[in-house]
Amino acid sequence: MSEPIILYDIPTQVPGKALSGNMFKARYTLAYKGLAYKSVWVESPDVEERMKAIGAKPTGLKPDGSDFYTLPTIQDPSTGAVVSDSFAIAEYLEKTYPSSPAVFPPNTKALISIFDSAIMNTLRPVFPVMSAIGTSKLYPRSEEYLKKQAEIRFGTKFEDICPEGPKREEGWKNIKAAFGVIDGWYSKSGGKWIMGDTFSYADVIVAAWMRSFSVAFDKDQWEDMKSWNGGRWGGIVEEINKYSILD
Amino acid sequence: MSEPIILYDIPTQVPGKALSGNMFKARYTLAYKGLAYKSVWVESPDVEERMKAIGAKPTGLKPDGSDFYTLPTIQDPSTGAVVSDSFAIAEYLEKTYPSSPAVFPPNTKALISIFDSAIMNTLRPVFPVMSAIGTSKLYPRSEEYLKKQAEIRFGTKFEDICPEGPKREEGWKNIKAAFGVIDGWYSKSGGKWIMGDTFSYADVIVAAWMRSFSVAFDKDQWEDMKSWNGGRWGGIVEEINKYSILD
Repeated sequence: MSEPIILYDIPTQVPGKALSGNMFKARYTLAYKGLAYKSVWVESPDVEERMKAIGAKPTGLKPDGSDFYTLPTIQDPSTGAVVSDSFAIAEYLEKTYPSSPAVFPPNTKALISIFDSAIMNTLRPVFPVMSAIGTSKLYPRSEEYLKKQAEIRFGTKFEDICPEGPKREEGWKNIKAAFGVIDGWYSKSGGKWIMGDTFSYADVIVAAWMRSFSVAFDKDQWEDMKSWNGGRWGGIVEEINKYSILD
Repeated sequence: MSEPIILYDIPTQVPGKALSGNMFKARYTLAYKGLAYKSVWVESPDVEERMKAIGAKPTGLKPDGSDFYTLPTIQDPSTGAVVSDSFAIAEYLEKTYPSSPAVFPPNTKALISIFDSAIMNTLRPVFPVMSAIGTSKLYPRSEEYLKKQAEIRFGTKFEDICPEGPKREEGWKNIKAAFGVIDGWYSKSGGKWIMGDTFSYADVIVAAWMRSFSVAFDKDQWEDMKSWNGGRWGGIVEEINKYSILD
């Protein structure tokens, strides 16, 4: 039996520690493919140093032009590979473990990568609410670090990103509208999944975000979201929860 | 032999009359599926009345909230169906003529509809240049009508939408960047088409826009565009030109 794949994630105070949508994409892909893995938890301010140490590649550039390192990253003891970025991780696992269940039906990689971007663009209105609520679930070092990043990203003091009151209410309305767009895409598919009756990485992406919202938001907020669009999102999270994606 | 399908399009002064990307999507779909059709040309200011007369459905709402009618629209004498909107036309033809070559591989309709939106979003920087240049190829009645629509859409006098000089130069740079994004998607596909070696409606969409640019822009501008991204766009238009999409 080969050694489990190592998955680097940022710890939070929710049960099971995992919270981020991008991390859940990697977890769900690993679990769906039936690959053994174990989590290694890295606080946000330590990500860059730790990733450099294991030879991970940067996934982008910081505003100052220097390399930017992000999680999820996996390290595969069977091959020595270190892979960052959730989509690249799915591509790597699909290529390296071809006998495991596929998440990319034949010839769909480009279309699903575009779907990934479309989901990110559509969920953009969720991010201020997610930032305001989700950050408080982190441990203090990561919380402080990610609050500063959020201030830069949204160009405002953290407290003003999405305070309770009219701005937060507006945020929830925007989220509901965004979910309506995604629901429209599912309606066009002619089945339960984006590819009709065929489960694919497109559904991993949606399920990962929904799982993320289900742990980040308060119970009554998530209960409300679950009921939107004929209960589609609750159903998807129920499906993802069949897989053991926490270790 | 059944009567040809009628395709409603707006006439322009370019050879073959057809110019719009959305119209080329319908033409290419009909031609790829080997279905007989004939064009009926309607000047822009007459579209609403003509479409109401044949029982076409509106495809959206005008800013004042009233129904908005657009072309392409097809009228199929074999079934009596009248269908507007290029994507709906492709869906109708695929369903109604299942023995003709398919443009939607199994389970891809939702992903390709999202691709359609992604292409529209990505090509948004092309539209000011396209509007400034393409409108002049119309006949006077449509030209005047569509210039007014463009002024409303871009919120400025027609002459200021994309005048020659720095603004037009900036427009060309934006187009090149947008094409670079689409080229990145093709690179991910592992083949010549968005679905690798399988031709699909995703390629119809891209080919239709490229064909539109190739007839709307001046010869030297198109010669330049053809060479971008390793000549990908010239190659795609060459492929589309194998099909007789003008009658």
